[in-house]
Amino acid sequence: MSETTALDTMGDWRRSHDCGALTASDVGSEVCLMGWAQFRRDHGGLIFIDLRDRGGLTQVVFCPEGSQAELERAHVLRTEYVLAVKGRVRARPEGMANPNMPTGAIEVEVKEFKLLNTAATPPFPIEDRIDASEMLRLKYRYLDLRRPKLAANFILRNKAVQSIRRYLDQLGFLEVETPVLTKSTPEGARDFLVPSRVNNGSFYALPQSPQLFKQLLMMAGFDRYYQVVKCFRDEDLRADRQPEFTQVDIEMSFVDEEQVMGMAETMVKTMFREAAGVALPEVFPRMPFAEAIRDYGLDKPDIRFGLKLVDVTSIVKNSGFQVFAKAELVKGIRVPGGAALSRKEIDDFTEFVKIYGAKGLAWIKIKEDEWQSPFAKFLSDEEKKGLTEAFGLEVGDIVFFQAGAADMVNNALGYLRLQLGERFEMIPEGSFAPVWITDFPLLEYDPEAKRWAARHHPFTSPQPGQLGTLESAPGEALARAYDLVLNGSEIGGGSIRIHDRETQRAMFAVLGIDAKEAEDKFGFLLRALEYGAPPHGGIAFGLDRLIMILAGAKSIRDVIAFPKTQKALCLMTEAPGEVSTNQLRELGIKLRTRDKDKEQS
Amino acid sequence: MSETTALDTMGDWRRSHDCGALTASDVGSEVCLMGWAQFRRDHGGLIFIDLRDRGGLTQVVFCPEGSQAELERAHVLRTEYVLAVKGRVRARPEGMANPNMPTGAIEVEVKEFKLLNTAATPPFPIEDRIDASEMLRLKYRYLDLRRPKLAANFILRNKAVQSIRRYLDQLGFLEVETPVLTKSTPEGARDFLVPSRVNNGSFYALPQSPQLFKQLLMMAGFDRYYQVVKCFRDEDLRADRQPEFTQVDIEMSFVDEEQVMGMAETMVKTMFREAAGVALPEVFPRMPFAEAIRDYGLDKPDIRFGLKLVDVTSIVKNSGFQVFAKAELVKGIRVPGGAALSRKEIDDFTEFVKIYGAKGLAWIKIKEDEWQSPFAKFLSDEEKKGLTEAFGLEVGDIVFFQAGAADMVNNALGYLRLQLGERFEMIPEGSFAPVWITDFPLLEYDPEAKRWAARHHPFTSPQPGQLGTLESAPGEALARAYDLVLNGSEIGGGSIRIHDRETQRAMFAVLGIDAKEAEDKFGFLLRALEYGAPPHGGIAFGLDRLIMILAGAKSIRDVIAFPKTQKALCLMTEAPGEVSTNQLRELGIKLRTRDKDKEQS
Repeated sequence: MSETTALDTMGDWRRSHDCGALTASDVGSEVCLMGWAQFRRDHGGLIFIDLRDRGGLTQVVFCPEGSQAELERAHVLRTEYVLAVKGRVRARPEGMANPNMPTGAIEVEVKEFKLLNTAATPPFPIEDRIDASEMLRLKYRYLDLRRPKLAANFILRNKAVQSIRRYLDQLGFLEVETPVLTKSTPEGARDFLVPSRVNNGSFYALPQSPQLFKQLLMMAGFDRYYQVVKCFRDEDLRADRQPEFTQVDIEMSFVDEEQVMGMAETMVKTMFREAAGVALPEVFPRMPFAEAIRDYGLDKPDIRFGLKLVDVTSIVKNSGFQVFAKAELVKGIRVPGGAALSRKEIDDFTEFVKIYGAKGLAWIKIKEDEWQSPFAKFLSDEEKKGLTEAFGLEVGDIVFFQAGAADMVNNALGYLRLQLGERFEMIPEGSFAPVWITDFPLLEYDPEAKRWAARHHPFTSPQPGQLGTLESAPGEALARAYDLVLNGSEIGGGSIRIHDRETQRAMFAVLGIDAKEAEDKFGFLLRALEYGAPPHGGIAFGLDRLIMILAGAKSIRDVIAFPKTQKALCLMTEAPGEVSTNQLRELGIKLRTRDKDKEQS
Repeated sequence: MSETTALDTMGDWRRSHDCGALTASDVGSEVCLMGWAQFRRDHGGLIFIDLRDRGGLTQVVFCPEGSQAELERAHVLRTEYVLAVKGRVRARPEGMANPNMPTGAIEVEVKEFKLLNTAATPPFPIEDRIDASEMLRLKYRYLDLRRPKLAANFILRNKAVQSIRRYLDQLGFLEVETPVLTKSTPEGARDFLVPSRVNNGSFYALPQSPQLFKQLLMMAGFDRYYQVVKCFRDEDLRADRQPEFTQVDIEMSFVDEEQVMGMAETMVKTMFREAAGVALPEVFPRMPFAEAIRDYGLDKPDIRFGLKLVDVTSIVKNSGFQVFAKAELVKGIRVPGGAALSRKEIDDFTEFVKIYGAKGLAWIKIKEDEWQSPFAKFLSDEEKKGLTEAFGLEVGDIVFFQAGAADMVNNALGYLRLQLGERFEMIPEGSFAPVWITDFPLLEYDPEAKRWAARHHPFTSPQPGQLGTLESAPGEALARAYDLVLNGSEIGGGSIRIHDRETQRAMFAVLGIDAKEAEDKFGFLLRALEYGAPPHGGIAFGLDRLIMILAGAKSIRDVIAFPKTQKALCLMTEAPGEVSTNQLRELGIKLRTRDKDKEQS
């Protein structure tokens, strides 16, 4: 292109509308649109182009009525060329309207156009339905993001975030920024580290969350804080994780659980309504942790469908089937109509539960004339009667059983239940079922380290009257903690914090953190607790997951503009990359592998 | 405190008001306040406490009319104790009202109170006027932030940011998050690096700005992007810099300078009005870079006062004063009334300009009967007449001169001018004078590297018709760049970007970046330019500096919740800190100093 085109592109050209705006009521208007050539069709000597921008698509027509000269120039136009057109809106001819397109009633007759940029043929078509590999799409992320379906996720995400901010702002929450270059904390996941150049040998850590800072802001009297903030965990990535993720982080002073949960519930309801027009239940149900485990096997139950777990331990405790008789816990799931499952499908489910430590999967099909099952012959009539009543069995059902250690049984059946819900299409499409999980255990036992660990984090307050329990039976102490679960995903979690130094010390003691270690790691927090910390509590939401659910996206990568792969790579920029020896020297570090080259220090 | 007090603090207590809310119209109401005991006064058997929260102060009175029992319990209360009080609002007795306090007409008669937490005596008083060292205040940052004057900066900052977001949201800008873990770019300042555990030997870099990502978002068709985003530079810190800082980052497609500047100007005006009730000029003046240097010596002129620089090179080019005669450039500043300056003050200014490379500072005092000056005797009558006319000299003036290389002269006099403006109190308090600087040179010569470097960044577009100049006289090529300067500080800057690959290649060529280096460093951007990049441009604001100016704060640390010192330390958390050998081993790095211990790899 000529220099003038390249450097002085816009001249006096100004967009009048975006490409999704024009309708029949604009017929006759003079307009100016700018965007990408999505599609070109030559027909009857005319050239039709679907012009695309963030707003949508508009058909523009190069034709003699508009300008013969421009029609002739338009022959150079190709897919993904960038252009500006001026012209007149006209109704599409009889029978040519496209009711599936917001602008489908009109087209723009081009009087003048400006070629803003050319484009090479993209490596994959810019269309919603494509079969390009995700690798290729991530490398050309800027092209992938042009696809309207993917772009829509970011428009939705922006709406959701603005709704959340508006809501919190109206309630007097202050958005306060906390540091990204902070101190490595030994609790929790692995930190990303940043070597310090000014202080060689020392390292900053990227925050796993602003937990301590938000508590300190409460001690500073800031009263109500929020932040939409990047957090970092250097963990091996599961399909649905990213090394950096975004949290909606909230903290309040002078409150208890009811106030935090009430605030958060309304925030989520408001956001769903404003961003997506979705009405969530007026009041979110609540479920104690113990009930969630009992009925769903998991602490993040998907309550959009039934298939609850049933505890039959007492019924089969003297069974001739030794797997049942010897087990700590025996639970089952009755699936109405499940007797139709093929052997292959049952085998697949059996493989599936092995991921969760199960050795196998026991099942019984309830047939008209018999209980079909590899182990039914070991069951007494009394046991069969007991099971029939416990599950409410009917002909055509299948029951899956799991027996063994309680954690394994709940976990394996909990995840099997989700598989069964999908297999039997029991999950209503587009439905959203939030539920609060409450009354969490404060601690969980770490069998490897042979000690108690904080289930949420060590600053979570025990429930009233639990200080004694904390010492006598740590596993039974309950926390002032709450999670918000949506469609089987934990989207938020929080707690009322410990705000007095004595309780915090007692907590550290149970966790096996002695006074010196506590001072080294959390000295500044303990010190802050001495100077008049107010009662406070809060909650944090995983924004990426929340948007993913709201958008109905399959992967968290579809709601992050420039995501990383499971190997923590950015395929577009090729980060991480090599750096110069000089950079490392300034930071006072060297690569371990360089040792072999006997590099001098 | 008892367990019940510590763990079940709030019970059915709910705040009805904050501590800045109650006025005479609330007299008779039953209220519940919570906060910190700012000040306790015992008088006539009663106990008065100023209760403080984010909203302000309210005087609460423990008295027999409220509750004799609570009055007796109140004797334990000390400064910074945290309490909740329930009581009745009453008018203060005749003559006891405090008109300087929003709640000064009333007090709360305490019927019941709850001690929420005790407090040790703070290391410095929680008052606006304190003389504690900044070191101590940073260590106890959570206490320093309780001081209302400091806390007010964060309330202002929040208001400013929400105003900016609202404005941009209404204009259809999408808030999009860009990565924090990204690729090290060789342009610009030093990067903070993050060693990769999954890919040992590779490093992420923390972004100096999301420049490339925001351009890629335009290429992705996102059209209008913004983000309030942390950026990072590992530079030696000047008084007013932080290793992490916040940028309001904006980019637009299909626009030219006028649209970006117009949008930004209205954004700043709206923010000043909404956050602080400040009316900025309806239209911001504009000044070409060359004029700024000519009149103010600097490209970020403080136009709140005069004292413009005057070029007298041609007047003194044949002077007997050799310092003038031999100089590339001779400029002076006339200060009305400056003849009253003492020798000591002139000596101080002389030392000051040496920071900017000046060898000394020539001056002339215009007395009734003579020009008092170390060098006036070298000036001819004609030169004196020329200077008198050029400066408009009057009795009582002083003129300061600088002679030598143009850059040094402009810089030294430019900063001297700011000193003089303060010394002579020429800067109206609370005034705000924005000015756009335009027509920047595209390049600047780097004498050390002996090559041209991009003045803004290598993606800034040359002005129309400058591609030839770029090759023939690189120093004269002008950029499509603009800075917004407020009260002598650059608060924002941006440009129209290069959007075609050929111009980008030409730019790299001038910068001495060959095709291979360009591909290695910016391959993904060059590739993106091939697939239909739209014309685009943007701007970024330094939020910390902007809020500092708006708040009238003396230091950038006063508008950042948890700032770092000039040695990049957080005195509160003691970051950066040591990490374990195991952590380093996982990252594939070791400390250089460890070499001496012959540590095995």
